[in-house]
Amino acid sequence: MELDALIRCVLLTIDPPSLGDTASDWERLVRALRPHLDDRPLEPTFAALRDLGPALRRGEWRVAATLADVGDAWRLVRVEPVDQAAHPFGLAIDLGTTTVVAELMDVKTGAALASRLAYNAQRQFGADVTSRMMHAEKPGGLAALRQAALDTLNDLVAGLCAEARVQSRDIATAVVAGNTIMQHLLLGLDPSSIRREPYVPTTTRFPILRAAEVGLNLAEGAPLYLFPAASGYIGGDVTAGLLATHIADDEPLSILIDIGTNGETVLGNREFLMACSGSAGSAFEGCGLEWGMPAQPGAIERVWVQYRTVGGEMPRGICGSGLIEALGAFLQADVIDRSGKVNLAAPNTRRGESHPEVIIAAASETAVGRDIALRQGDIENLIRDKAALYAGSRILLANAGLTFDDVARILIAGNFGQSLETEQAVRIGLLPDIPRERIQFIGNSSLAGAHAALLSRGAWKRAREIAASITCLELTVEPRYFDEYTAALFLPHTDLSLFPSAMSN
Amino acid sequence: MELDALIRCVLLTIDPPSLGDTASDWERLVRALRPHLDDRPLEPTFAALRDLGPALRRGEWRVAATLADVGDAWRLVRVEPVDQAAHPFGLAIDLGTTTVVAELMDVKTGAALASRLAYNAQRQFGADVTSRMMHAEKPGGLAALRQAALDTLNDLVAGLCAEARVQSRDIATAVVAGNTIMQHLLLGLDPSSIRREPYVPTTTRFPILRAAEVGLNLAEGAPLYLFPAASGYIGGDVTAGLLATHIADDEPLSILIDIGTNGETVLGNREFLMACSGSAGSAFEGCGLEWGMPAQPGAIERVWVQYRTVGGEMPRGICGSGLIEALGAFLQADVIDRSGKVNLAAPNTRRGESHPEVIIAAASETAVGRDIALRQGDIENLIRDKAALYAGSRILLANAGLTFDDVARILIAGNFGQSLETEQAVRIGLLPDIPRERIQFIGNSSLAGAHAALLSRGAWKRAREIAASITCLELTVEPRYFDEYTAALFLPHTDLSLFPSAMSN
Repeated sequence: MELDALIRCVLLTIDPPSLGDTASDWERLVRALRPHLDDRPLEPTFAALRDLGPALRRGEWRVAATLADVGDAWRLVRVEPVDQAAHPFGLAIDLGTTTVVAELMDVKTGAALASRLAYNAQRQFGADVTSRMMHAEKPGGLAALRQAALDTLNDLVAGLCAEARVQSRDIATAVVAGNTIMQHLLLGLDPSSIRREPYVPTTTRFPILRAAEVGLNLAEGAPLYLFPAASGYIGGDVTAGLLATHIADDEPLSILIDIGTNGETVLGNREFLMACSGSAGSAFEGCGLEWGMPAQPGAIERVWVQYRTVGGEMPRGICGSGLIEALGAFLQADVIDRSGKVNLAAPNTRRGESHPEVIIAAASETAVGRDIALRQGDIENLIRDKAALYAGSRILLANAGLTFDDVARILIAGNFGQSLETEQAVRIGLLPDIPRERIQFIGNSSLAGAHAALLSRGAWKRAREIAASITCLELTVEPRYFDEYTAALFLPHTDLSLFPSAMSN
Repeated sequence: MELDALIRCVLLTIDPPSLGDTASDWERLVRALRPHLDDRPLEPTFAALRDLGPALRRGEWRVAATLADVGDAWRLVRVEPVDQAAHPFGLAIDLGTTTVVAELMDVKTGAALASRLAYNAQRQFGADVTSRMMHAEKPGGLAALRQAALDTLNDLVAGLCAEARVQSRDIATAVVAGNTIMQHLLLGLDPSSIRREPYVPTTTRFPILRAAEVGLNLAEGAPLYLFPAASGYIGGDVTAGLLATHIADDEPLSILIDIGTNGETVLGNREFLMACSGSAGSAFEGCGLEWGMPAQPGAIERVWVQYRTVGGEMPRGICGSGLIEALGAFLQADVIDRSGKVNLAAPNTRRGESHPEVIIAAASETAVGRDIALRQGDIENLIRDKAALYAGSRILLANAGLTFDDVARILIAGNFGQSLETEQAVRIGLLPDIPRERIQFIGNSSLAGAHAALLSRGAWKRAREIAASITCLELTVEPRYFDEYTAALFLPHTDLSLFPSAMSN
């Protein structure tokens, strides 16, 4: 397959100047590049203009020019003597509230060279987007949050470069998918209006800035593509997820639930897209739980009577899939009741320091030397989040005059382990009681979207159309939302007629 | 007259968002600005995007938006609460090799608020463009030259702001006219290829960069307009001079001679423009002369039997007009002969430390307490420069199949005093022996062009057309140039038939 990535590297042989043809270096370059520009203008970056003269002469008029598609024009990102030119590298980044994942790609071959995950260093200022926005309003808060995001990304870049033996200045672009607040904080845009009714961001479409002005350690002129958002709470990560899943291209109706810190749900197909965000899902990402963690080696990703960890390592914590399965398994084994209350008569339970808890891995078998457990409060957090997610889907469907029966597939995105027992997700009422084959766990769809856009100009263009076509519902002003939410605070639900398979168990 | 400057400030009242209209701040701004955009897109600067949310809310949805015309789009330079908005200020800058002049303008009213001149701090690295280019090739040389240019400009900005009581962050644009080498050095573009055959610059058309990335202390997002050049030696200052003089718009044939450090001559009218540069004229700008100086207070600007200084102050040196008049007066009074040799029998002459010299102002009557004099070597420098300028005009005319009789006017640009005795310029052969009313001294046409472009979008657009239409002759490869130059090394010329009025004297 021929890639048509957002950046491309063109090898050029340029006519050297003579007294009969004294056109400037820039004119000569434009002349040689013309067949590659599809009649669109070429604009220089400051960095590329500075490198141009020396590169042409050191390369003896054979150079590699790296171009980026910036919409109405091509941007000359860099120019190097042809014998010094590296493949152009690019980054696909999922800038999550809790975790950040970056993938280093060779955009010529499409090969992923390395991938890394890190906690977002902004966590020191608050676990969720609301506390981050509150911190941004303190003196110096916004600058500190911005710097923390940059530190996180630059550390990831350094790690990826070391692993893949690549120079960071050879990374010629980055595509970033994050929620609207994360994208604002990365650029130092004031997010305070997103927190207050009517929840308006500075922008939903971000200009294509240069890495150097943003503060990222890539090639100086590298363009930074931030995914377009639909609103303050339906962000670029949702757009990226829709892009990756092709929900907006297909006829069958789908629901996409992103169980990230910000818990967004989208209902739609190629005819319409409707989205809401419940500020829910962070518990399933491990936020606020004693033993929560991302799906990294040592994360308990499956729980039956026993558990299984990512990479088969000794356990260090529990990731999203493990949390869902744990709740389901506890309910199935009567370790917790339908309200989530821990039954202290059940095995592996105990009264912890202040509240009951359920031990999943005893200290002796963990990598951390302490019991890994779910506390009563953790369980309640998880139930609140699953209730918010379920209620969100219900509200979207009601607004569209539809039910779960109309939905061809439900895609669950999140930083999960490799697999997940669908049955348990339905058992706890996180997912509706529909035929199980309609449910898919798709992993990090935000990263997948960033990856797709990096490697395809058409995909990036489509992302802008998708973002513009989403109708956003604001749940806090949706009259039925509170009732739907309250009703879902049981396992699986107060209305068991919605979960016939639960009744038959 | 209604101004149509490169930047404009638009006062806006914006609809505040509501739950029924949650468009982002940016979308609301674009909506309100639409009637002002002539169907061209609006692009944000990073700085303006960061200010947008707070400005809208602090201004209670009444803001002042400063827009800059960047060709295919408008660029949002800044946005402020309407009650905090200053008039937009702009700078017109003549970035000369020897001296730099900056003028602070109120671009709404067109008023000049302050004007300042400074020596280019790059002088420490060499007096002329060739020595600067040689320094740029040394390790760290280019960076040092760039920094010197920035220091010079930023010092001027600080002085202008203090004088006019303006904040530098309220200066929303700068238009810079300089020769191609000065413009390259300001941006840190390698000029080394301009110095070597075939004398090719990195570029003749400069992207509209932001003040912050260039390193100028203006509004962070202020666009920097660098005049387009025609070649490595026919620079933006020539384009600016042509713009200011309307030579390229008029039917009568004109010659423009810029007696700056770089000595460019243009012949043409609205049908054609032909230019050459002799690396001549720097002596008339005072370069390399013991007592040379710009036309600032204390500069001897007129010389007969007596002299007159700029501002009537005690003399500190001699500026261009004084140098021309001194040579003419010396010749007229037989203080020097036709080859420029000092006649030690004449009054006010003496054998100086090593060579003969002519005293113009005695130590007791100067502000510097030393005799102000022209040395034999100074006089020879001036003769070489006038010969190069005269020969340049002759070559241009010969290439066009024309003579001086065909020329309707000769415009002499340079950092002169207020007036100049045309007769003396002809007497020494700097200017041809044509009817004196055809000769005009027009002062700093580079600055005048920058001024015009700042205040008129049409003028800026015209500058690009002008630069593109100039045919550049390279004198060093012009076979007749050396003969013409050698023949002009006399006062006024070896061929006195070219100067009938000299013969009649």
